Amino acid sequence: MKLYGFWRSLASYRVRVALHLKGIAFEETPINLLSGAQHSDDYRKVNPQAVIPALIDGNGPPIFQSLAILEYLDEVHPSPPLLPKDARARARVRGLAQIVACDAHPLVVPRIRTYLEKDLALDEPARNTWLQHWTAKGLAALEANLAGNPATGRFCQGDNVTLADICIASQVVGAAFFSVDTKPYPTAVRIFGDCMKMDAFAISHPLKQPGAPASH
Amino acid sequence: MKLYGFWRSLASYRVRVALHLKGIAFEETPINLLSGAQHSDDYRKVNPQAVIPALIDGNGPPIFQSLAILEYLDEVHPSPPLLPKDARARARVRGLAQIVACDAHPLVVPRIRTYLEKDLALDEPARNTWLQHWTAKGLAALEANLAGNPATGRFCQGDNVTLADICIASQVVGAAFFSVDTKPYPTAVRIFGDCMKMDAFAISHPLKQPGAPASH
Repeated sequence: MKLYGFWRSLASYRVRVALHLKGIAFEETPINLLSGAQHSDDYRKVNPQAVIPALIDGNGPPIFQSLAILEYLDEVHPSPPLLPKDARARARVRGLAQIVACDAHPLVVPRIRTYLEKDLALDEPARNTWLQHWTAKGLAALEANLAGNPATGRFCQGDNVTLADICIASQVVGAAFFSVDTKPYPTAVRIFGDCMKMDAFAISHPLKQPGAPASH
Repeated sequence: MKLYGFWRSLASYRVRVALHLKGIAFEETPINLLSGAQHSDDYRKVNPQAVIPALIDGNGPPIFQSLAILEYLDEVHPSPPLLPKDARARARVRGLAQIVACDAHPLVVPRIRTYLEKDLALDEPARNTWLQHWTAKGLAALEANLAGNPATGRFCQGDNVTLADICIASQVVGAAFFSVDTKPYPTAVRIFGDCMKMDAFAISHPLKQPGAPASH
């Protein structure tokens, strides 16, 4: 498979983790978000929304949106599964994943940061406050759902990694990028720690990718 | 089933449509977003994220996040299906749905509008520009994926209603709320028109719900 991603992209991180968890061979083509490469005519032919990630599997058209890609990978490469079997448990996993992928992460992506800077003329402290505020809100929503819930185990839903853990990992990595204090979210942080003990999460980490700085 | 929703909520609209499409009996409890009822202690016991919708099915815990709810409904009440059978087609449908539910709609919800007004002290024209900008961006991303794509039929993916159509309907309704010109998005608008010919979409429309104004 072929992944269009970028070291800095938290959504690309999610897809990279799933590919490694499932042992799927892939090559990654970097689309430099910092230089605006996602807006090039060439990349718009891959994904007309001009965002990453996008995944190519064989001769099919590009697959877009990180959670749609994760579900696709789980359907065509079911082992190990990224969703439990029970419908209610699947709904909880998807709900937790969507707290990150719908309600938290889209507020801190490059196009939003650009709008805050260029269109709203916010100074850097105000932009950082925005990034920290919404990143923390996402973690708080996760923590409120995870802490004390009997369905929570070593991972978000019992003791197997699911879509929810992949999304939480991306959210906690984002918190480090934006210098968010994660102490108020001990369950999310504990799960993140257990994720990072797994090779698929560790080698996929944004700061381990080509082009990444030594620290952020 | 029991739905916690609100007339104005575009995400609640999605769930209402799916319940009606599948012929599932439900009662809706309004959570008044305009008065902040989602932040009450009582509602936080239902959904600690303090957002709607949430769905209760029997004695199980509340199910949260609109797309997770739609997938759950499709799993426990498979007829009529809201996803095609082919994995690539399912990925496209989910990707289109997530353009709305992840990248567009979360930018215009009450908590964002409040932050723009209270924390950033933006005046009403600047806030309206924000709402229109991101609503239009979502429609543009949909249109770029739909127009001229051979997979697009009467609906987003062939001739059967899917999750993607439900999300597009909510996005076009949102465009009307925020006075966004939809002329540049003829495919999305055409699909919306075909959706609205169906009872499930028409009777679920935000402006048809208890408490809604005669127009918006």
